[in-house]
Order: sequence, then C-alpha cells, then structure tokens
Amino acid sequence: MSKKTLRIIPLGGLGEVGKNMMLFEYGKNILVIDSGLMFPENHMWGVDYIIPDMTYLEDKFDRVRGIVITHGHEDHTGAIRHIADKIDAPIYGTPLTCGLIEAKLRAAKLYDVDRIIEINAGDSINIGPFEVEFFHVCHSIPDAVGLGITTPVGLVVHSGDFKLDQTPTDDWPTDFTKIGDFAGRGVLALLSDSTNADQPGWTSSEAIIDGAFDEAFRAANGRVLVATFASLISRVQQVINASYRNGRRVALVGTSMVVNSKLAIKLGYLQDPHDVLLPLDQALGLPNSKVTLMMTGSQGEPSSILGRLSVGRNRQFDLEEGDTVILSAHPIPGNEEVVSRTINKIIQRGAKVIYDPLLPVHVSGHAKSEEQKQLIRMVKPKFFIPVHGELRMLHAHADLAHQVGVPADNVAVIENGTILELTTESLTIGDRIPGGYVYVDGTGVGDIGPQVLRERDRLASDGFVIVNMMIDVETRELLDEPVITSRGFVYVRDSEQLFLRAQEKVASIVKDRHNDGIVSRLEKSLSKFFYNEIRRRPIICVLVNEV
Amino acid sequence: MSKKTLRIIPLGGLGEVGKNMMLFEYGKNILVIDSGLMFPENHMWGVDYIIPDMTYLEDKFDRVRGIVITHGHEDHTGAIRHIADKIDAPIYGTPLTCGLIEAKLRAAKLYDVDRIIEINAGDSINIGPFEVEFFHVCHSIPDAVGLGITTPVGLVVHSGDFKLDQTPTDDWPTDFTKIGDFAGRGVLALLSDSTNADQPGWTSSEAIIDGAFDEAFRAANGRVLVATFASLISRVQQVINASYRNGRRVALVGTSMVVNSKLAIKLGYLQDPHDVLLPLDQALGLPNSKVTLMMTGSQGEPSSILGRLSVGRNRQFDLEEGDTVILSAHPIPGNEEVVSRTINKIIQRGAKVIYDPLLPVHVSGHAKSEEQKQLIRMVKPKFFIPVHGELRMLHAHADLAHQVGVPADNVAVIENGTILELTTESLTIGDRIPGGYVYVDGTGVGDIGPQVLRERDRLASDGFVIVNMMIDVETRELLDEPVITSRGFVYVRDSEQLFLRAQEKVASIVKDRHNDGIVSRLEKSLSKFFYNEIRRRPIICVLVNEV
Repeated sequence: MSKKTLRIIPLGGLGEVGKNMMLFEYGKNILVIDSGLMFPENHMWGVDYIIPDMTYLEDKFDRVRGIVITHGHEDHTGAIRHIADKIDAPIYGTPLTCGLIEAKLRAAKLYDVDRIIEINAGDSINIGPFEVEFFHVCHSIPDAVGLGITTPVGLVVHSGDFKLDQTPTDDWPTDFTKIGDFAGRGVLALLSDSTNADQPGWTSSEAIIDGAFDEAFRAANGRVLVATFASLISRVQQVINASYRNGRRVALVGTSMVVNSKLAIKLGYLQDPHDVLLPLDQALGLPNSKVTLMMTGSQGEPSSILGRLSVGRNRQFDLEEGDTVILSAHPIPGNEEVVSRTINKIIQRGAKVIYDPLLPVHVSGHAKSEEQKQLIRMVKPKFFIPVHGELRMLHAHADLAHQVGVPADNVAVIENGTILELTTESLTIGDRIPGGYVYVDGTGVGDIGPQVLRERDRLASDGFVIVNMMIDVETRELLDEPVITSRGFVYVRDSEQLFLRAQEKVASIVKDRHNDGIVSRLEKSLSKFFYNEIRRRPIICVLVNEV
Repeated sequence: MSKKTLRIIPLGGLGEVGKNMMLFEYGKNILVIDSGLMFPENHMWGVDYIIPDMTYLEDKFDRVRGIVITHGHEDHTGAIRHIADKIDAPIYGTPLTCGLIEAKLRAAKLYDVDRIIEINAGDSINIGPFEVEFFHVCHSIPDAVGLGITTPVGLVVHSGDFKLDQTPTDDWPTDFTKIGDFAGRGVLALLSDSTNADQPGWTSSEAIIDGAFDEAFRAANGRVLVATFASLISRVQQVINASYRNGRRVALVGTSMVVNSKLAIKLGYLQDPHDVLLPLDQALGLPNSKVTLMMTGSQGEPSSILGRLSVGRNRQFDLEEGDTVILSAHPIPGNEEVVSRTINKIIQRGAKVIYDPLLPVHVSGHAKSEEQKQLIRMVKPKFFIPVHGELRMLHAHADLAHQVGVPADNVAVIENGTILELTTESLTIGDRIPGGYVYVDGTGVGDIGPQVLRERDRLASDGFVIVNMMIDVETRELLDEPVITSRGFVYVRDSEQLFLRAQEKVASIVKDRHNDGIVSRLEKSLSKFFYNEIRRRPIICVLVNEV
C-alpha cells in the first residue's frame, strides 16, 4: 500500500453495504461514519438486532479520530452504545441527530457532555487528516446531511441517505449549491445511497402526502389514527397541518412518538403555531370527528400502539367502528406479511384502513433512479461507489452510473468487509477483512452464532423430544419405562400411540446392551422412527441416568 | 331460512376469502367450488401447507353433487386429495386443470377415471339443482374459467381468478360475449376476484413481457436462466418464442417444470413449432450464448433449482460468471425477504439478475381496479360479493363496486366461515360456522394447533433448557449435581458460568425440600433466573428421577 492511499471499509454482513458503519482509514487515522444497527431477517430466530462486527477496529480504537453520524435513524445510530463504550473519540452530528444519540447514550449510562459535538449543515471541521464539510440532504428525518470529505488523496463525497425532494415539508431542499461547489473543485469519488436505485423514476415529493391526508381526513367521520415511524418528524408536522386544516386536534400516543416530537419541538424542527397538539386524555374527551391520534406501529410490531390496537390489547383506548387508520409508511422489506395481517385485523375491528396505493399517504426517503443519475451528473465524480443498498441495488446503481458516463472500470461494487483502496489515480478492490454480523439477543452481544440459529431453525419447524431413562449401572437394563416428553412436536394428547411405539423402540435398543454410544444410537434411531412415522425431524435429547 | 335460499359459504381461516374452497348449498344439494391449499405464513412454524376446515361438510358429504375446479393452480387444486378421499362426487375442470388434478389423485392413490369429468369453456352442465356455464377467463395459467351458475334463486356469476388481458400469449381473451349474455339475462349476484383490487389501473398485458425478454436476451452474452412458476405455461411459451427470436435453444430443468410442460404440449396449450426445446444434457453442451434454461425457484425456495444454484448446490450444473438470470415472477406476499436474499446470492456468484421493475419480465394474473370496475359494469349484478382476497382487498373491491353504482347495502364483505344467504330479493350475512385452518405438517393433518405453534414460536426465539436430576426418594436430597442441557438458547461453550449459577440455583431450591410442585417451582425460578441474567425466555423442562 502506497503512503497516499485512503482505505474505505464498509462493516457488516451480507446486508446493506456501508449503511450501518463505514471506515475511512488514512495512515494511522480512522474516521467512522455512522454507527447503526440492522433489524434481523425472519430467519434470524430470536435475534433482537444486529450490529456490525468491529473486530477490525479492536487494535485500532485509539486511531479513531471521530465518529460522524449522517442522520438520526436507527440504522445509522442504533449501535452507538456498542462503539461509545470502546472509543473515546468525539461524535459529530446535527442538533436533532445529537439529541437522539444523547438519549441512547444516557440510557446506556455512557453519556458525557464532551463526547457529542453539534455541527450544522454548512459547517466544515477537521477530523484528523480529513476536512469534513456537512451539506444538507432531504431524507425521511429532518436535519440529515451528506459529507464532502477532503482527504489527502482528494475530495470524496458521501451522499448519506438522501432524495432530491423539491418541496419537502420543511422547505429545505438538498443543498445543490454545495454539490455544485464540490463538482467545481473536482470530486475524486462519490459514495451514494443505492436503496431505491432499482426503482424507476423519481421519488414523489412529501408534498403529495398533504393532498392525500386532506382527502382521507375529509372522508373520515370518526377519529383519524395515523401510524408512522417515531423518527418521521416531518410526517408529524404534516399530520398537525392536515388536522388544523380539517378542524381536528392531535394527540401523540406512545413514548417514542412523544419523546421524539418533544425533542423536535424544542430544537425547532416541529412547529405547532395553532396549538393543535394536546395530551391524549384530553383528546379522548373530544368528539371523534375532532380528533387525530398519531402513533407508532406502521410495521405491525406487536408491542406498538397500533399492534396492540389491532388485537384489542391497548390500555388507554380501543379501536372503534368508524375510525380511519392511515398507515403512513411502507412495510420495511420482510415486514410485508405482518403489516398485511395487521391491516386485516384492524378492518375486522370495524375501522377503515388507508395505505399506499389506495392513497399516496407515504413516500420513500430515498432517491430513485432518475434522481441518482441527476446526483452523479451534478457531482461529476471520477470514481463511483454505490453504498447503503443490498448487492442487487448496488448493481442497479452501477448500471445507472454507466448510463451517465462513469466508465465501468471506475465503479466499484463491494460487499461489507471489503477494503477499497483509493489513490489520486486509482480505485482498487482490496482484501476482505474477517467478520460480518454480530447478533444481539437480550443482553447477549455476539454469543448467538450459526449453531444456535440452526438449532432454533429446527426447533421452530419440528420442536424437540426428550427421552429420559434410568439404567442399572451393572446390568445395563432399563429400571423403568423410558419417559418421553416433547414440546412443539405434536399435540401430545392425540399422540399416545406414537409415544408408546417410541418407548418400545427405545426399550428394544437398550436391550441390545451395547453400551458404546447408546445415546447417539438412540437419537439416530428415534430421529429415523419419527421421520418415518410422521415426516418430522425434532431435536432429540436422550438422557441416561445410571443408578 | 325460506325454502328459496341459496347459501354461499367460503371455507378457511383468516386468509383469502373463498379462494381455496367455496360451497353453494341449496336445500340438500351442495356444489363445491375449488379445492385448494394455502401456503403457510412465516409465523406458522413448520407447517407445510394449510387446507380449509371441512367440518361443516362432515355430515353432508353425500349431499355434494359435484366439485368444480376453476383452474389448475395449487390454491385451487392442492387440497383435492383431502376431499377426494371423503367425497364420491365427480370433479369438473377444463382439460389442463383435469390433467393436473389427475396427477395429484394418482400420487395419493385416489385416481379413478370416472371421477374426473372434462369440460371446456363454453360448456354448460347440470350439477344437482345448478346449471353451470363455464366461460373462459385470462389468468396466469391456461384454460382458466369463470362460472355462470343458474341457481333456483337466480343467476350467480363467479369470475374465478381473472384479468382482462386483450393480448394474452395464447390470444384467447376473457369471454366478453358470454359475460354480455349473462348481463342480458340478468345477474342476481357477482362473486369476483379481489386479489389486486387495491392496486390502481390495469394489469399490464402479457404481451409486454415479450419486449422485455427480447431486451434481456439481446444484452446477454452468456446463458439465460429464466425462473418462474411451474404452472405458468404461457411464460414457458414466451421463453420458447423469445429464445427462437434470439437464436437460443431452451432446456426445461426440474421435475415439475418438465412434467407440466409435457402435459401442456400433449394437450395443445404449449407449442414448439421450431423445435427449440431440447434436453438439459444436450443444452449444456451448446455454447452459452445459444442456451436458455428454464426452471422453478422464483420464490427463492431452497429446494428449487434456482434456490440450489444460488448456494452452489445444484447437481447437474452451476451458475457461471456471465449468466443472466431472469426472475419472471413477483414474490408471493411473505416471500419478499427470501427472494431478495436469493437475488443477492446469485449476484455474488457473478451472474446478472433481471427482475421487475428493472425490466417488466412479469405481470400479475389478477385484474386491478379499473378492470374490476369494467367487469362489474359488464355483468351489472344486483348483488356484489368480493372474494379471493384478504379482508383489505375485499374492502377495496367493495369501494370499487360503490363507485360503479352497486348500492352499499347490496355488497357483502364476509370472512371465511360466514354463511351468505341469497334469495331472489335479498343478500343476508348469516351465521358463522365453526372451523378455520387445518395445518398439514408432514403426514399429520390437523394435529398441529395453536399450542404446538406457541411452543415452536418460543423455541424459535429462545430455545430450551433441560434440567435433569436424581433425588433420593426418602431424604429428598439431590444425589448428584443436576445436569443442565440446552439447545437454541446460548452458545454452550461460552456459557459455563451461566450454567454453574443455574445449577446452584437448582440445588438451593431443592434444599428447601418442599416436595409439592417442585418441578413447577424449579421451572418458574429458572425462567426468572435466565430472564434476569440474559433477557431470554427458553422453554424449561425439569426432570426429576427419584431413586
């Protein structure tokens, strides 16, 4: 590696590349970009969330000069406690981002006023050998930024999560001037958000939601319930505005929605000039046609307010006939089924449900293909690196870059854990570092691996069977009938015959009196027996008590 | 119930209403429409498939005058063996549908040449008090039909699964003439497929796929692999045609794809006038640029050809750098995540993947909202009953019916298990019959219920712990240290301390020598202990061996 080489390293497993954490390494200096978590896929049984594997950093923690967070979403901030307990370097973010991070660090007892450094879009700061210029981008949370990073090899632009909304709710468009300024200076490499790169066209403006809300609010005779993400502050603003236009007051329901909105009001990201907001207990006293309730649960999460309402288990109020529920969010990939089921359950309770595409009550926070091409045309990078997407989006994004004139050799599609080496002249795909996902389950960080997940996978589909028996240590004979217990395997009350035959099977094998490997022989035989009988493969545990 | 009442009863659980099975009951005469299975949702652990609960029919099997199958898809035919072993009545279907059913009955050793009666679109037959007229509809399998059922209370039209494609691959549009004929006679009630009722506009014609295929085939230098459903015969036709236009030969890969296509060729639904088809082993000998391989696996099923290719475990051939894989299907709801993962894995292996929306390589087989309104306008029913969708689609469909003039009181949105009572004058929502889903797991039909699924759910997320101990029957003292075993709970090698503390906990509780309920006391204490230690709730089994 020549001295003048910048190493760009996205961390994590086979997921969205560089979304949760990315390193810029130059000599003995490391800049960390984002520190987020990933939500588990359905097959990652029992995993609460996933953080990037930081093994690569372990002997280099003292080289980290700073942690820059591009915006306040969980997939960019949710692992902050797992890095803040190891690294002393300051954490940089815009005011809203810092407010959200502060709450996380306080909860983890890692907060310290000196650790968090507020910056604003437009600011420029030096972090080790990097000069970082923050520029505003539109996204589905206020105060998101992209980064212009002047490195010793050249200017690298990182889009952050972004879209090019010309009429965002806060009237603060993506900073085209700054982007033009970068282009004028000459951009060595662009890293850009690929999330929607395989979607044609432009992402609709948030402005179209106002009209959809008005239509839905006008048609509603009863209460309006709007479910969205607790971090989607601009949507709270749109609901406040639409409620005001339609003669309704708004109550925010649920801790995360209330806490985030309070923070946003305090910092000036959320305005309520007409005093539309009021506490829930007061809202519940108003006529239904005068009330909007705003809450979480757009992903069908069972523990969210909407999740509890859908099964009639919310404490303070229930769904009522005549309610209109607006799902102001799209399902996150993998949640489609549970969202669909939640909608059906809400309808069963007599409420009407409005979701995209019935009305455009949500738009994505990520740029689609035409915007992507626009950004590349504006930035005019020499090298292009699609990030923040799964492999398929990155490839679609690479195709878009070709279409707007970036030569194929100047585009690098990489996976998490691959080192990119950037010089003033070249972009090279380097080695892979070990590591991938770190699963967090309960208080366990990294103690769940492939073996435990394989066991859970098998338990999920076929349950387990325990065979417990006492054997005479001298004669090797059964002292009593073996006791067979199962969970998640069959409905026990209807399966007496099956278990009786299994007991006989066990007894006949024990009779052979081959001591060696009796446990594994029994497990194998029973596994075969149950598969032949009922085509299921439970985990089998044979316990031999020698007496 | 007056004598002149037709009872319409969709069977099943909270799923797509009337899709898998529906009954028309008049006096002591029952007509069964469709006999399909449902694929399990992700939370239905280990369930292979689901069939409608037929308890209602149990004392009425001899009243069934016929079973009419609208088309050959699994969700309309997949439960045929479960009804054919109980009911003697003839099964009616078009030639392709009958061919597919015959294979299922043969596999279940229930085939009998007299049971299956082939009809053709345009035919009219009497089944008990019902005169059933079959009319052709476009769908994603050839030879699908809708039904015009003249009942003692009036003419009821059932759309089947349909769309209004003007340029289908087989050039056989939905039979508008017959529909007009029904309208002229006066339609009492329309039952219509709601699957895409919440989607705006029209479903694109299959014809647009030809252009997308040509674009993809032209761009491909290596092999083209097309994955779709084995039943999507028209897509096989389109792939044969596109391959011929682009100088390629086609090999079908995998049993279901080969068997279905053979049947379709034999019955004349699939044409290969230029001898484009050839066996796989011969195709593998041709230059890559001359080969198209067609297979299943569009849903990322691990056991399908494409699923095996994506992880490098296919027997006859592997994915190669330069292959172009076309996913000619949309993910079935609930499969989005696994399809996405499969695409990423294929890309990791160096192949290019083309899917909608990158190119329109698939279109839905179901009518969208404008087509739905069109059909209602054409049929002019007095009463309207949306079917074949989840509750949310049915409600969207009901809204569409209002928009085209069906009064709200004349529309009935019902769930499976609800009896609809139709007279010449009225449509009434009647009682609910007991029953819902019947889960099939291995060879067990209906033995898996909520309790086993709850156990599997808990096992999937936290695994289990067994505590095995020997106790002196006299002194109630432990004779040895309790042995603790676990699966799917923690990585055992890293958890020695945890298990040691659990052992101590057990010993201290046993020391109290309260005999009563020692097992349940231990289970409760350990559950609490593990939750406090590691925030997980495994299933705990305490085994006490008294010696």
